[in-house]
Amino acid sequence: MRSGKLVIAQGGGPTAVINQSLVGAVLEARLFPQIERIYGARYGVRGIVDEDFVDLSVESRANLEAVAATSSSALGSTRDKPDLAYCRNIFASLKAHGASWFLYIGGNDSADTVRIVSEEAARESYDLRSIHIPKTIDNDLMENDHAPGFPSAARFVAQAVMGADLDNRSLPGVYVAVVMGRHSGFLTAASAAARTVEGDGPHLIYLPERTFDKAKFLSEIQTVHDRLGRCVVALSEGIHDTDGTPLSIKLAKTAETDAHGNVQLSGTGALGDLLCGEIKSKLGLKRVRGDTFGYLQRSFAGCASDVDRREAREVGEFAVKQAIWGAVDGSVTIRRIGNYAIDYALVELAKVGGKTKVMPDEFIAPWGSDVTPAFLEYLRPLLGRDVPQSAHLRGGDIAKVLKR
Amino acid sequence: MRSGKLVIAQGGGPTAVINQSLVGAVLEARLFPQIERIYGARYGVRGIVDEDFVDLSVESRANLEAVAATSSSALGSTRDKPDLAYCRNIFASLKAHGASWFLYIGGNDSADTVRIVSEEAARESYDLRSIHIPKTIDNDLMENDHAPGFPSAARFVAQAVMGADLDNRSLPGVYVAVVMGRHSGFLTAASAAARTVEGDGPHLIYLPERTFDKAKFLSEIQTVHDRLGRCVVALSEGIHDTDGTPLSIKLAKTAETDAHGNVQLSGTGALGDLLCGEIKSKLGLKRVRGDTFGYLQRSFAGCASDVDRREAREVGEFAVKQAIWGAVDGSVTIRRIGNYAIDYALVELAKVGGKTKVMPDEFIAPWGSDVTPAFLEYLRPLLGRDVPQSAHLRGGDIAKVLKR
Repeated sequence: MRSGKLVIAQGGGPTAVINQSLVGAVLEARLFPQIERIYGARYGVRGIVDEDFVDLSVESRANLEAVAATSSSALGSTRDKPDLAYCRNIFASLKAHGASWFLYIGGNDSADTVRIVSEEAARESYDLRSIHIPKTIDNDLMENDHAPGFPSAARFVAQAVMGADLDNRSLPGVYVAVVMGRHSGFLTAASAAARTVEGDGPHLIYLPERTFDKAKFLSEIQTVHDRLGRCVVALSEGIHDTDGTPLSIKLAKTAETDAHGNVQLSGTGALGDLLCGEIKSKLGLKRVRGDTFGYLQRSFAGCASDVDRREAREVGEFAVKQAIWGAVDGSVTIRRIGNYAIDYALVELAKVGGKTKVMPDEFIAPWGSDVTPAFLEYLRPLLGRDVPQSAHLRGGDIAKVLKR
Repeated sequence: MRSGKLVIAQGGGPTAVINQSLVGAVLEARLFPQIERIYGARYGVRGIVDEDFVDLSVESRANLEAVAATSSSALGSTRDKPDLAYCRNIFASLKAHGASWFLYIGGNDSADTVRIVSEEAARESYDLRSIHIPKTIDNDLMENDHAPGFPSAARFVAQAVMGADLDNRSLPGVYVAVVMGRHSGFLTAASAAARTVEGDGPHLIYLPERTFDKAKFLSEIQTVHDRLGRCVVALSEGIHDTDGTPLSIKLAKTAETDAHGNVQLSGTGALGDLLCGEIKSKLGLKRVRGDTFGYLQRSFAGCASDVDRREAREVGEFAVKQAIWGAVDGSVTIRRIGNYAIDYALVELAKVGGKTKVMPDEFIAPWGSDVTPAFLEYLRPLLGRDVPQSAHLRGGDIAKVLKR
């Protein structure tokens, strides 16, 4: 029987529920005596290379539960995208510390890291079981119905756009919400859940799955504004024109890139400001406002979806069961059964690692600037219980009496 | 006995609980048979002038309760700041519709409108009882311990900064949150409630009550970054240097002003982007990010403070009781009893109208870039139940084994 240490780490952008997965794995791992000790690596795989480990075996259950309910990565995270040499350093550290299990909670880049480490261990015939645990607010993981972290971020976006739409309804004008999502529009699309009745915003939704046409964008805003006297827009930070380069990158004078070669799109209001400026100058509309949701949508404390919390916990637990009882390395995936139950399955790491899922055509309205009822049917069960619903006054008009 | 119509309107920026006040007033007004009918004016006092009234008497109790739980002004709002001529038109419409009571939910500008209308009615010896009902996320109303709407916005800011701080803890760098507040720093100061333990952000707080010194700002960020390897800043959109002009206004190439002569500070990320650029270029720090909380903090659906909901309901109820039983016009105010109960009192309209309350010195740290424990003691009871608390791992370090 395999025995030794279990090493767990968290990579990539944090989510509101990524600690549920950590705690699910840690509590499950404690049930297996062959796991001698549970090590957490600080700041993702960087902490493995640097031997920056924290002993998770000593954590109390009560504190672990409190950490599970805390958003963002409790172990710290990293934007490092390991190449083969980096992965060999990861493997060397795992070996030196007597690790027999390696769990990495992250997105498609993290899955790819697990794949390389897994291959290194196999090449050296070292007895290591490596499992990738999914998370990402972008919901762009292949083989998954959805990814833990997305439902809570989607709920935040829906609640934020609902509030902004009600605000815009009371003080009419144009409002543009810029939502995270580099290649996949799921999170921007989730703004559609803000609608309760006809006339509620968002009235227009722009996704990176479709080429952004500024003339069409302006004309669609004008049309909505003519009809309702106001217009609320949700727009992905990854929108791009025909050459595929995001507008926000063209905007950035000095494009800042991370280790993945990704240019920074968040943490700046430039895209929203640019588009609001165009709406004002080209359409001559007044009271044009934009908000860039930025980091709030990723780690906002206190409005996680209960469905997301439960599933994030379960993928952590499931990963440990697979690590102990399974015969292969792999990536934990979420499958949907009906609408709505789920099940988990382990798939080959290469099927998830480094790949990106985008919105399927049936989720995007044919005219490109809205979602379909099929998308809302997909999204609703993920948002969990007690999603706010807006209500409007129904009272009838009073006749005028003054002669003017 | 006075009898006739009661006219109610909502003015200024919406809040998460302003409909609680509307519904509190409407339900209370139904208990008094001398109130023949309850008219809601659409889009604030503009709707009174335009005779754009909705009959609130016909609303079901269930729908009113659903509206009360919905953020932003259900009747619509206005940025109009009425002068004497405008107020005479308000009064003419009230008279034409047989109004004997006029209730206006709003901030200090709305209180001033009520004062002018009240004076016009007195001048004409028209039997009108006019009451101002307080609301504002800025918390800048004189005579009030705090204003309805502020606690919910404060809670949003605290939860947002808590999430952003946890995010920054996992992926260290500098993070700047730009919070609403033109002259009063209460909302920015509320970010301090995000802290649970030593080392939690926000590490620096900049308020419009103190002159903003960019050199001091940069040096304080450097000091925090040297100590913690990261720095989270909360900063008011109203920060200004010695000449008193907000930085954001100096930034705006074409300053857009509203009817109050206020320049638009929200709905643009320019201030955050400017300061992040300075931090990068002057301090040479990497991973500098900024978010402008914008409209989210005002009307976010689903995280209102239960204390705020209750009090906003009560000021609406109290206003009707005063309107029926009281002998004078006035503004409803909130008084604190101990820590924490409250009571309500009617004060002269001129004591609230057109005046602005700012943070008292005892709430601001002597060095200017933090709040005091006295402020947190003031703030905590307002945030209500179940405010999220963050938890961190405690586990000890594992010794390194690799020789590098």
